[in-house]
Amino acid sequence: MSGDHGLRSSISASLNALNQNSALHICLVGDEAAIRSSLLASNYDSARLSICHSPDVVAMDDLPSKALRYKKQSSMYRALELLRDGNVAGVVSAGNTGALVAMGCIILDRLPGVRRPAICAPVPAKNGYTLMLDLGANIECDAEHLYQFAVMGAALSNALDGRDAPRLALLNVGAELIKGTSVVKEAAELISADSRLNYIGFAEGNDIFSENIDVMVCDGFTGNVALKVCEGTANFIRGQLKETFMKSLYGRLAALVVKPVLNAFQKDINPERYNGAALLGLNGVVIKSHGGSSVKSFEAAIHQAARAVRGDLTQAIASQLHTTES
Amino acid sequence: MSGDHGLRSSISASLNALNQNSALHICLVGDEAAIRSSLLASNYDSARLSICHSPDVVAMDDLPSKALRYKKQSSMYRALELLRDGNVAGVVSAGNTGALVAMGCIILDRLPGVRRPAICAPVPAKNGYTLMLDLGANIECDAEHLYQFAVMGAALSNALDGRDAPRLALLNVGAELIKGTSVVKEAAELISADSRLNYIGFAEGNDIFSENIDVMVCDGFTGNVALKVCEGTANFIRGQLKETFMKSLYGRLAALVVKPVLNAFQKDINPERYNGAALLGLNGVVIKSHGGSSVKSFEAAIHQAARAVRGDLTQAIASQLHTTES
Repeated sequence: MSGDHGLRSSISASLNALNQNSALHICLVGDEAAIRSSLLASNYDSARLSICHSPDVVAMDDLPSKALRYKKQSSMYRALELLRDGNVAGVVSAGNTGALVAMGCIILDRLPGVRRPAICAPVPAKNGYTLMLDLGANIECDAEHLYQFAVMGAALSNALDGRDAPRLALLNVGAELIKGTSVVKEAAELISADSRLNYIGFAEGNDIFSENIDVMVCDGFTGNVALKVCEGTANFIRGQLKETFMKSLYGRLAALVVKPVLNAFQKDINPERYNGAALLGLNGVVIKSHGGSSVKSFEAAIHQAARAVRGDLTQAIASQLHTTES
Repeated sequence: MSGDHGLRSSISASLNALNQNSALHICLVGDEAAIRSSLLASNYDSARLSICHSPDVVAMDDLPSKALRYKKQSSMYRALELLRDGNVAGVVSAGNTGALVAMGCIILDRLPGVRRPAICAPVPAKNGYTLMLDLGANIECDAEHLYQFAVMGAALSNALDGRDAPRLALLNVGAELIKGTSVVKEAAELISADSRLNYIGFAEGNDIFSENIDVMVCDGFTGNVALKVCEGTANFIRGQLKETFMKSLYGRLAALVVKPVLNAFQKDINPERYNGAALLGLNGVVIKSHGGSSVKSFEAAIHQAARAVRGDLTQAIASQLHTTES
């Protein structure tokens, strides 16, 4: 346990989550003495909370390759080992995303049939959110990768929200079949040929926010750019509004109404902070909560991990991609 | 002359532009009788305004290939012929973008050395705007294409704003040299090897709005997605704000301050409406004003065309890419 806010918010979030879900067990991985001292004043069901000591932490600026080699005593490494060995059913981390992906691939391994793990996060949309993947784990993708992302995204939507037939779309530059790169067109054929998927067709950048799409599939380059453009646009609009507001007293009053809306959106889409981003395709449930997680958002990430475990996410992906391969 | 708003706004814009720039001559291409009747009540310097009759128009939903074949009597076709034959120095059109690109390629031809024409439009940014290209004319690009976009974008920035050394960035998923696709990395080498270009390095999606970048280069797939994500984000924020505002009287008052800011942004970044988008790489200055152009924005497109002509945009691109090729 590390994360920008240190132990405090992850421990508070864990205790809240235990209170809210009586079926939940949590193992806190980190410096045992520090964890114990943080827990001292709290009331909790000690039968459902254990501690696993790890002396080291992965820093937010550690290179993934170096973390993998030199941080075997870190809480991140240890937590993934617990998952690999069946001691826990899922891992939630607010640590370094690159290190988490790298360690996940080595310690947990990919599921059989999975060619590339992907990062999938919710982007706010009308009436809820759209799950979008990949968000940067795979910069260059072929059609088969995109097809696998569709399968994994659909499985996540099913596990998290219980959707039987999540509506899948492929991000493209137009809705017509003739549009797009050869990779996107070939991926569309692979996805629509799989009758287990509810593929609704190509979608465009603005459709991310549509209430008609549950899962938006794209390569990690496009996904990363799209998410950062979201963030940049929101930031830019905030700046323009602020300038307008500052011009009058009336404007300053208006700002009080607008600020919370923009702040909430900004927080939701900040790509440095994918809150509740799932690393899909690994042999185990791994959820990344953002580095500067508030108690509430870390709590949400814990519940998300629990839902993914209960929804048998890993098995769902394994069985569908295994079938595809054979 | 066609466009969603018909003749009225383009004629008013033309008369205003003639008043504002005494060096300007305008040739209105379209149905002569309709143009003459629109001009009846107006005062203007008839020595600087001529009319060229064309009986047909390209519709907004005409397929580019069909427009090219069947609309040789259209105002768009005729205007590009006037440019090709040296009768005018630039063309401004509010018509069908696809048809304009296709007709431009055939009637004007590409400049020697230019591999692909590109669509370049201003995206609002802090302290002004960032010129971004390509915005959808070229869905699959190699490193040489991106390099040529950089040259053409820099030439446009120079012609429009008189910048001697426009700051160029390549859109990527991170600022570090090791980031990105092989195409983007190779393009970075080509661009930085050209000492005439002021290349500042990789930039991310949120940097489009930065005041430190004059020209952002990307392939047409990424550019199209990025622009539509901008539009979608702005639209989504507007929707969220509206909901918040509607909850109280005070909120409804705040909406009055916010609405014009969001409307202006939305209009600027609507990809269906690239206002003042330049088609770069053709043998002549062609500016696309958006279909639903207001008088003011059509006027801006006319002034932009005039600046591009005065700044010798076509020659600047030709000489730099010709040198590169030889």
